[in-house]
Amino acid sequence: MATPATPLLKDELDIVIPTIRNLDFLEMWRPFFQSYHLIIVQDGDPSKTIKVPDGFDYELYNRNDINRILGPKASCISFKDSACRCFGYMVSKKKYIYTIDDDCFVAKDPSGKDINALEQHIKNLLTPSTPSFFNTLYDPYREGADFVRGYPFSLREGVPTAVSHGLWLNIPDYDAPTQLVKPLERNTRYVDAVLTIPKGTLFPMCGMNLAFNRDLIGPAMYFGLMGDGQPIGRYDDMWAGWCTKVICDHLGLGVKTGLPYIYHSKASNPFVNLKKEYKGIFWQEEIIPFFQAAVLPKDCTTVQHCYIELSKLVKDKLAKVDPYFDKLADAMVTWIEAWDELNPSGLTVANGNAK
Amino acid sequence: MATPATPLLKDELDIVIPTIRNLDFLEMWRPFFQSYHLIIVQDGDPSKTIKVPDGFDYELYNRNDINRILGPKASCISFKDSACRCFGYMVSKKKYIYTIDDDCFVAKDPSGKDINALEQHIKNLLTPSTPSFFNTLYDPYREGADFVRGYPFSLREGVPTAVSHGLWLNIPDYDAPTQLVKPLERNTRYVDAVLTIPKGTLFPMCGMNLAFNRDLIGPAMYFGLMGDGQPIGRYDDMWAGWCTKVICDHLGLGVKTGLPYIYHSKASNPFVNLKKEYKGIFWQEEIIPFFQAAVLPKDCTTVQHCYIELSKLVKDKLAKVDPYFDKLADAMVTWIEAWDELNPSGLTVANGNAK
Repeated sequence: MATPATPLLKDELDIVIPTIRNLDFLEMWRPFFQSYHLIIVQDGDPSKTIKVPDGFDYELYNRNDINRILGPKASCISFKDSACRCFGYMVSKKKYIYTIDDDCFVAKDPSGKDINALEQHIKNLLTPSTPSFFNTLYDPYREGADFVRGYPFSLREGVPTAVSHGLWLNIPDYDAPTQLVKPLERNTRYVDAVLTIPKGTLFPMCGMNLAFNRDLIGPAMYFGLMGDGQPIGRYDDMWAGWCTKVICDHLGLGVKTGLPYIYHSKASNPFVNLKKEYKGIFWQEEIIPFFQAAVLPKDCTTVQHCYIELSKLVKDKLAKVDPYFDKLADAMVTWIEAWDELNPSGLTVANGNAK
Repeated sequence: MATPATPLLKDELDIVIPTIRNLDFLEMWRPFFQSYHLIIVQDGDPSKTIKVPDGFDYELYNRNDINRILGPKASCISFKDSACRCFGYMVSKKKYIYTIDDDCFVAKDPSGKDINALEQHIKNLLTPSTPSFFNTLYDPYREGADFVRGYPFSLREGVPTAVSHGLWLNIPDYDAPTQLVKPLERNTRYVDAVLTIPKGTLFPMCGMNLAFNRDLIGPAMYFGLMGDGQPIGRYDDMWAGWCTKVICDHLGLGVKTGLPYIYHSKASNPFVNLKKEYKGIFWQEEIIPFFQAAVLPKDCTTVQHCYIELSKLVKDKLAKVDPYFDKLADAMVTWIEAWDELNPSGLTVANGNAK
């Protein structure tokens, strides 16, 4: 359980945790997280007290805080759904965010060593991505690897990495139907790879174990309207992933997936999940072709600008699927307004030139 | 070193080996290859005798045989370059091809067990591919894996797999400049994954350890004009890979990469390689954007038809890069004519409906 002598990006990264319970799970993460600042977003009853183990540096926001800080714009932040975590992205002032669920524990690599998930995410974010051409030996920037024969030299500098999507051992991130059909399936396969998701390809982004460069892509990491009062849940991270990937492709930014693994301890109830998900399961059949076809205007050079354009496309093309998307498109605009209000110092600029 | 009780696809797969030397390397592969038929394509001096270890069932073609069988069309088959292997694809009458270089040995998995590369390729080819959307837990058809939350149900049947691209432990498949810069780099990372290369994404296909469904994609597996009398070498498999991927994307077929590994024993001489490659290294900067932009007409529904259309695009767009591409475009047409002459029973039809 060794930590690096000086934790990487110690003063440039916030860990965002959405929760409804005491954060005992942090004990296990202490060697890896204790040097970092935590932003805890308390979901549900704000009168409840969330206990945080001693020695952690944190700020905590409950629903009353969110309402107070955002005023009427608080309507864009979900309630009774882990989508509320994106409020933490907005109030952070750091360049990097790592977000993790409170049922995720430290995993072990095949040699039995505890995996410092955060350290691996940081490595992923600090090295370039290669979205334009596939490298068959995976991440060419890793030690012991490189670009293979036939990889164009002009593309070997890569592009800045905006997102690092980590995976899960033990309980895989399955939807309710798959959970119901395969209740005992566990993920035991440790795949020792990090790879760039190619340009033009969408993926299902899971919010359980996720890091990103807030300067490069933060305003696109909106987790949508889910949970209380909404017709859908468990699509918060998916929504953010689709929007983020389309915008990363447009702005020439990279998205990686693979290492690090966390140990996901507890499957959520598949019956409850089915109720939350079932509209998403048929809506996604129309949402995904929508995002696959989405083209942003060339003059969109900031994430905010891209996101507002995307909200217009959502209103235009998805509102006919269900009136929910009309409301969601409005919330996307509110989110950007709130983001800019809390982050007035300047627009987020693509390609690593931010701030 | 256990073989399966009945080797998979025993009578439906040929192993194609290009060589200039005695095939002692087959001793190591005996437990895995002996049940299959071999097609040996002898490169270089046809008067030389190639020794094949006892007990293997094979046919062997040297340059004289190629000239006799193809007549004037033999001009499309390269000489003094492993590109000659594609003659073996043409004379095969089987549904599946596995091709391997004679400096590739049996690799061991992390538990120390010999890897039956051919068996893994067959598994890859007999299960579908998922080119339209990325699955973060890699091959969803593998035991212990599935589609993750957010993966559209309409895409879960996948598409037929046309190509299985395997990897290499020990000597990685680097170009000459990388070999020169990193002479001691060895690939020791065993990545336990198979994944579909997404639609619209090109990759550097290596011919060292490659399997494909000949019925689905065979006529696109032309390894070009390389070696003797040509201005370029070591781009045979790359050329085939670019053409194949564009045609697979057009026809709705899948390309997988990852497992199985072979043990690549011997790096070729980087100085010799540089001489063969140097034109390719700058040409690929124009070839890859060409293939990325290539669009085939909708009415191209057979591989042959697609390939002829691609040859026209090559003539039209790449001949201005170098007169070589004019000659190559003609050879592409000759290749298809020769293919159809040797395979008169019917056109190869997409989506598994062949013959």
